[in-house]
Amino acid sequence: MTRRVKAGYLRPLDFKHGVIDMNHGAGGRIAAQLVHELFSAAFDNTYLNQGNDGALLPLPPGDRLVIATDAHVVSPIFFPGGDIGSLAVYGTVNDVAMLGARPLYLSAAFILEEGFPLATLRRVVHSMAGASRRCGVPVVTGDTKVVERGKGDGVFITTTGVGVVPLARDIGGANARAGDVVLLSGSIGEHGVAVLSQRASMEFGTAIVSDSAPLHELVQRLLAAVPEGAVRVLRDPTRGGLATTLNEIAQQSGVGMMLQESAIVVLAEVAGACEMLGLDPMYIANEGKLVAIVAPEWADAALAAMRADPLGGSAARIGLVCTDAHGFVQMTTCLGGRRVVDWLSGEPLPRIC
Amino acid sequence: MTRRVKAGYLRPLDFKHGVIDMNHGAGGRIAAQLVHELFSAAFDNTYLNQGNDGALLPLPPGDRLVIATDAHVVSPIFFPGGDIGSLAVYGTVNDVAMLGARPLYLSAAFILEEGFPLATLRRVVHSMAGASRRCGVPVVTGDTKVVERGKGDGVFITTTGVGVVPLARDIGGANARAGDVVLLSGSIGEHGVAVLSQRASMEFGTAIVSDSAPLHELVQRLLAAVPEGAVRVLRDPTRGGLATTLNEIAQQSGVGMMLQESAIVVLAEVAGACEMLGLDPMYIANEGKLVAIVAPEWADAALAAMRADPLGGSAARIGLVCTDAHGFVQMTTCLGGRRVVDWLSGEPLPRIC
Repeated sequence: MTRRVKAGYLRPLDFKHGVIDMNHGAGGRIAAQLVHELFSAAFDNTYLNQGNDGALLPLPPGDRLVIATDAHVVSPIFFPGGDIGSLAVYGTVNDVAMLGARPLYLSAAFILEEGFPLATLRRVVHSMAGASRRCGVPVVTGDTKVVERGKGDGVFITTTGVGVVPLARDIGGANARAGDVVLLSGSIGEHGVAVLSQRASMEFGTAIVSDSAPLHELVQRLLAAVPEGAVRVLRDPTRGGLATTLNEIAQQSGVGMMLQESAIVVLAEVAGACEMLGLDPMYIANEGKLVAIVAPEWADAALAAMRADPLGGSAARIGLVCTDAHGFVQMTTCLGGRRVVDWLSGEPLPRIC
Repeated sequence: MTRRVKAGYLRPLDFKHGVIDMNHGAGGRIAAQLVHELFSAAFDNTYLNQGNDGALLPLPPGDRLVIATDAHVVSPIFFPGGDIGSLAVYGTVNDVAMLGARPLYLSAAFILEEGFPLATLRRVVHSMAGASRRCGVPVVTGDTKVVERGKGDGVFITTTGVGVVPLARDIGGANARAGDVVLLSGSIGEHGVAVLSQRASMEFGTAIVSDSAPLHELVQRLLAAVPEGAVRVLRDPTRGGLATTLNEIAQQSGVGMMLQESAIVVLAEVAGACEMLGLDPMYIANEGKLVAIVAPEWADAALAAMRADPLGGSAARIGLVCTDAHGFVQMTTCLGGRRVVDWLSGEPLPRIC
C-alpha cells in the first residue's frame, strides 16, 4: 500500500459502480492506482507519502516501545456508532494505551474480497482516516491484498500500533495486588449489542450505539492525576467482556476479586436486549471502556480524573482485589447473594470486533 | 493472542483431529487455550510472555524507527521452499531491511477459517516460529480471529515488523540518480513459479523451490562494505516482479533505467515454466531477492559484498540509472534490440504472497 506512485494512463477509479477485482491485489499499475487514489489520498501524511514498503519515523528518545496488533473481522462492517474502519483504529490505539503508552503510529493491512464495492471500501477508509485524525495517530504504512470471491468477507483490516512509554512506568495485567481498587470507566455491553442488533439472523430495533472510542487521552489524564506506580493495571474489556477481562487479570496477577454488581452500570436498553437474547452483559464486548486497577490510596483521585474525561463520565469503583490462590472473581449481587464470575464459555459471540 | 493465560479445566487441544471452531476466536477460555498451547508455546519469548494486549519492548537509543506491514494470503499455503508461516516472517523482515533498518520485533495477526485443521495450523505456526528464530526477530505480540466457514480461506497472516535505522542513513525509492548502478542479488521468478506449480488449476511438475528467505543480513553486509550514502535504494521485487519494482523506483526518483537482459539470471526451469504458462519472469514475484541501486564508484564493492553472502552468490550488475523525465525502464535484449519494460498489467497472478 505504501508505494505511492501515480498510476498514469488509467481512467480514475469508479467509486460509484466499481468493485474490487483481483488486479487490485496483484502489485501492478492497477494496484498502485487504488493506493494512490484511495488510501494515500485518505490517510495523507508525510510518512505514508515516503512511498516505500515501510515507513521511516522519528522516535522520541529514551523511552521503551509498545507494539499491539489486532485483526478486525467485525460483521456486519457498519453498525450503530461505528464501522470496521474506525474500530480498527480505536481498537489498536486502545491496546497501546493500556500499557500506559502514548500511541504514535499505525499500520493498516487490508484483505479485500473480489467484488467488494469500491464505494463501500471508500466509506470504510474515510471513516478510518477520520478516526486516525481524531486520535492524532497517523496511518504510516500498509498493505492491500485481494482474495477470490467466497474466500473472504468484504474487508478484513489488521492494524498494528506503535507507541512509547516512559522507562519508569510499569502497567500490566500481572501487577494487581490484594487491596487494590477496581475502577471501570463506564457502562458495559453497548458495542456487542449494537453489532448483534445488525445481524441478519437476529435483527432487532434498538437505540443502542457502540461505545467504540479511543481511550488514550483518558489514560493520559488518569496517569497525570496519580503518582507513577499507583495505576497497576489498565485493560479494555473487549471480546469476552468485563467478566473475562477481570478473570485474565486475576490469573495473571495471582489474586482474586470481589465485585459489587450494583456498581456496574448497564444501560436499560442493553439489559433489555441481553435478556431477550439470553446473554449476560458481563460477557459482552466493549470498545470504549477500560478497567483500571489502582492502589487504594489513589483510587479517589483516579476516579475523579476518569470522571473528568468525556469518555469516563460514569466511571465507578466496582470492586476490590483480594487474596485468592485460585484467582476467582466473585460478585456480590444486587440481591445480596454472592456468585463466581467465570470466564466466557458456552455461546460465543463471533466477529464482534 | 498475547494474553498468555493458562486455560485450566480444559482437555489439551487435539492437534491430531481437532479443527478451529468459532470459540477459538471468541475471547474466552477456549481462545486462551489456543494461545497458550500453540502460539505462546511456539513463539516463546520474554516479550510475548508478558501476557498483555501489547508488548513492552526495549529500544536502542538515538535511532529512527521503521515500521512495515504485510498481509499474507498465499494460496496454497504450503509450496516448495516455504509456506505462509515462514513467508509472513521473511516478507516483513525484508520490508524493514529494505530501508536499511535492523529488524527488531514482529507482530502477527491470524484470521482463521472455521474448520481449519489444528494440525495444519500447528505446522504453519511452527514454521513461522522457526523462521522467526532464524532471523533473530521475535514475535512479540499478536491476535487471533475466527471467521465462519466460507468467509475466509484457511489462514491469513498479517505481520508487522519494527526496526531501527541510524539517523544518518537515507535509503529509499526516491533516491536513485542518473549514473547509479542497478544490482540484483540473484536469479528471478522462483517464488512465483513455485507457488503456481502447486495450484490445482495448473499443477505441473517442477524442481523449482521458492527463494523465500530473510535478506536483513545480506543488507547489513552490503551496508558495511560501502560508505553511508553509497546505497541509494534497496527494494525486494515481490508482487509485480522485477519489472514493476524497477518502474516504481524510476517513478519515485524521476529517472529512467537501462537494463541488460543478458545480466538478469533466470533459472532454466523457471524460464521453461514461464514459457509454458505464457508468463514473463520479469513480472513474477520473488521473496528472497533484492535490487540495490548504488553510487557508481561503490558498485564493485557493493557487488562483492552481496556475492559474499549466502543469499547473494549470483548477484549481478543488471543496468544503469539514466536521465528520463518519463521514468521509462528500458532493456537491451539478448538479441541486441531494445524494449520498454512496463509495469505489470494484463493477467494478474493473485495470492502469490
